[in-house]
Amino acid sequence: MRQALHTLEVRTSGKSLVPITRDVVAWTQAQAIASGLLTLWCRHTSASLTVQENADPAVQRDILAYFERLAPEGTEYSHDDEGPDDMPAHLRAMLTNVQLTIPVERGVPTLGTWQGIYIFEHRSNPHRREIVMHLLGE
Amino acid sequence: MRQALHTLEVRTSGKSLVPITRDVVAWTQAQAIASGLLTLWCRHTSASLTVQENADPAVQRDILAYFERLAPEGTEYSHDDEGPDDMPAHLRAMLTNVQLTIPVERGVPTLGTWQGIYIFEHRSNPHRREIVMHLLGE
Amino acid sequence: MRQALHTLEVRTSGKSLVPITRDVVAWTQAQAIASGLLTLWCRHTSASLTVQENADPAVQRDILAYFERLAPEGTEYSHDDEGPDDMPAHLRAMLTNVQLTIPVERGVPTLGTWQGIYIFEHRSNPHRREIVMHLLGE
Repeated sequence: MRQALHTLEVRTSGKSLVPITRDVVAWTQAQAIASGLLTLWCRHTSASLTVQENADPAVQRDILAYFERLAPEGTEYSHDDEGPDDMPAHLRAMLTNVQLTIPVERGVPTLGTWQGIYIFEHRSNPHRREIVMHLLGE
Repeated sequence: MRQALHTLEVRTSGKSLVPITRDVVAWTQAQAIASGLLTLWCRHTSASLTVQENADPAVQRDILAYFERLAPEGTEYSHDDEGPDDMPAHLRAMLTNVQLTIPVERGVPTLGTWQGIYIFEHRSNPHRREIVMHLLGE
Repeated sequence: MRQALHTLEVRTSGKSLVPITRDVVAWTQAQAIASGLLTLWCRHTSASLTVQENADPAVQRDILAYFERLAPEGTEYSHDDEGPDDMPAHLRAMLTNVQLTIPVERGVPTLGTWQGIYIFEHRSNPHRREIVMHLLGE
């Protein structure tokens, strides 16, 4: 049983779902661990991780529009000195996830056919995001 | 330290919380791993996993009614070619979880007294759902 | 590769975000495991775990106010015999998390600079909450 750890750095450019499935799968495969457990950790409180359909781009548009309604800007928040998109960003991060742990079989994460892994960027301005990847297995 | 991996297949019949605690605990116990880490991964984007009260069935009725309001059908979604329940299903899956990782002690997951594990089926039609179970420990 | 398991007990006094980062980090460091995986499991269905900004207290006020609106008391729930705050507590727990798994590097969880770990207490009355901490690594 052994471990591997790596930080994936991703540049985002405004509110969006940024696909990272390829990067995650490629790094996992490169570790040559046949069976194990892969953990992704998002080191931020205004961006998150989500697993969503990887086929129709309309799904992503609907998701973005939905979260604008669910945790809207323009509400009177006490915490507003980092801009109107900051507090909604924290709320949206809480409502989704900052962490995913996925079983690994035959060297790859056991994602379903339609599952893609995304960084969900909640801020309007460009950001550099760090996702810690940890793999344990043999 | 060793690992075990198994896919649990569950047939669902419409929007509901389908209890899987017994199946999960039984499989965990059968691996004879005293201490470890159990991970459940839902291989879908329109069904999810949740931990909720296992006692009063009214809790489940309230949960289903709440999510109908929180991510309603009938809103104009761009992605609607798989039916009016599909996009709300994606949103509800995002708002809950596709993964659970539970410490194992004395051969069983350390669930609290009132915690039950459920597949949260978000689609109206029957589906076959796959939950990957991964156990690591000794 | 070895494991450690411990239950953190925390007394809460009404709806609030109770910081547990220090307790979690201190316990992790005491295990002297340089690299590994830390899992926290909340053994309840009306309290949850969340990772949020640890700097401005206004963030926590906004979070509490937001969840009062998102899953409000006063709605007619079927399950109401444990008080008006009980069913909203279950819903708020579902919308956040009961579990966190964090990679460990150089003996500490790889939290980002602004990330704090909190028990999110959803009930109005004081409660004793149990968080199972599991650490695996070497």
